[in-house]
Amino acid sequence: MSLTVGISGLGQIGGSLARALKAHGIRVHAADPRVRRLGAVRSAKLLPPVDLLILACPMPEILNLLVQMRHWPHLPLAVTDVGSVKAPVVEALRRLPKEVAWIGGHPLAGTEGSGWASSNPDLFKGATWVLTREHRGSGITAKVGRLVRALGASPAFLTAKRHDRILARTSHAPYLVSCALVQAALADGIRPAELRRFSAGGWRDMTRLALSNPIMAKGYVLANRCEVATALRTVALKLRRLKPRPRRG
Amino acid sequence: MSLTVGISGLGQIGGSLARALKAHGIRVHAADPRVRRLGAVRSAKLLPPVDLLILACPMPEILNLLVQMRHWPHLPLAVTDVGSVKAPVVEALRRLPKEVAWIGGHPLAGTEGSGWASSNPDLFKGATWVLTREHRGSGITAKVGRLVRALGASPAFLTAKRHDRILARTSHAPYLVSCALVQAALADGIRPAELRRFSAGGWRDMTRLALSNPIMAKGYVLANRCEVATALRTVALKLRRLKPRPRRG
Repeated sequence: MSLTVGISGLGQIGGSLARALKAHGIRVHAADPRVRRLGAVRSAKLLPPVDLLILACPMPEILNLLVQMRHWPHLPLAVTDVGSVKAPVVEALRRLPKEVAWIGGHPLAGTEGSGWASSNPDLFKGATWVLTREHRGSGITAKVGRLVRALGASPAFLTAKRHDRILARTSHAPYLVSCALVQAALADGIRPAELRRFSAGGWRDMTRLALSNPIMAKGYVLANRCEVATALRTVALKLRRLKPRPRRG
Repeated sequence: MSLTVGISGLGQIGGSLARALKAHGIRVHAADPRVRRLGAVRSAKLLPPVDLLILACPMPEILNLLVQMRHWPHLPLAVTDVGSVKAPVVEALRRLPKEVAWIGGHPLAGTEGSGWASSNPDLFKGATWVLTREHRGSGITAKVGRLVRALGASPAFLTAKRHDRILARTSHAPYLVSCALVQAALADGIRPAELRRFSAGGWRDMTRLALSNPIMAKGYVLANRCEVATALRTVALKLRRLKPRPRRG
């Protein structure tokens, strides 16, 4: 593919993306205020003209960039993103100048690590990469779909609303549940050393998500707050039903 | 060690124990109504005299055996167990005839598999093996401690009450939370195929415990019902605090 791709954000996802695309011979221009790699500029506004701009920063920053983009010196030909919540991103994409093509995206990949140091060009191999049914520009779905497949991932199409409904259950609410388990154990007077010593694989599994980057996590929980709150309400209901009753008699 | 050990229950833990002890040259007599291995007899009552009997069946059966034991033709010299809840076991152990030495035990090892087919003589290597501070018989702590170390595990001493308080947080409540996450996602209209496709490592981690053997799980949840209910109450409280509020304005 003879694309020129811009990537805003060289964290775990953006960094993995940049490394994987370069390995495919694609020209990459990166922007990140903190990471000096691949000749990255400080701000996405300073990127040269690109065929496709991929927004790979935490949720609130993706939304900010989409609002500011109309004032940039060079508009990208097309835009996609890798944010964990899709409805607000699609809403912001719709407000881009008419000449910019777009489609929302979310690769279901990543570890509890964060930042460039945890990036890995093979991160997307075998992963599902959600693309939103909402899009603008006739060639955009095929173009981004090809890119996704080149990275070893499988594109899957969902409306932004359905995506956010599902991910609230499979990712965003489970993150808060994982945090609640740790907080509750400590609040009940179990010492950290006891939690480490008197636990097995189950506890490690249930608390790994709580180790996620809290800035990223706060971003998706707040951006998807309605679905997350509804999901947690149902979890609480199921927990009340599963709670053992006091012994009869 | 020139011990003769009896094991009641050849599931994952009992089976692993039997295989590991035999590998150490210890004579093992096994009892299990379903598993015909190692010349197992149908019932623990039919075991020949042993130096140490290890009860490795699900929680309610451990308690039943301890009640019936006084009527067995041969009493073991000493008894321990591998049950996940210690207070009711210690209470039942106290009621054994005076000549029987005892100490409660709980190896923090195991996978979501179950039964003899999932047993593994290396299962206990590197694991913590809780022994109860409550015991009877001057040599029992040293004798069982040696056995535990021979299996590659580290003995750790807790009162039955503290054990049950900790394990409610690190294992029993997390099991129910794991079940609640799956039930809630389905109740909210997410299809099983969507849960599989639109999830990543976090969901797999958070729902692995829900795959535990439900008979074992029911056993420990009910045997530790007070601590589990208290633990879930605190989890629900923390979840209410973590739940995102509706957007202001």
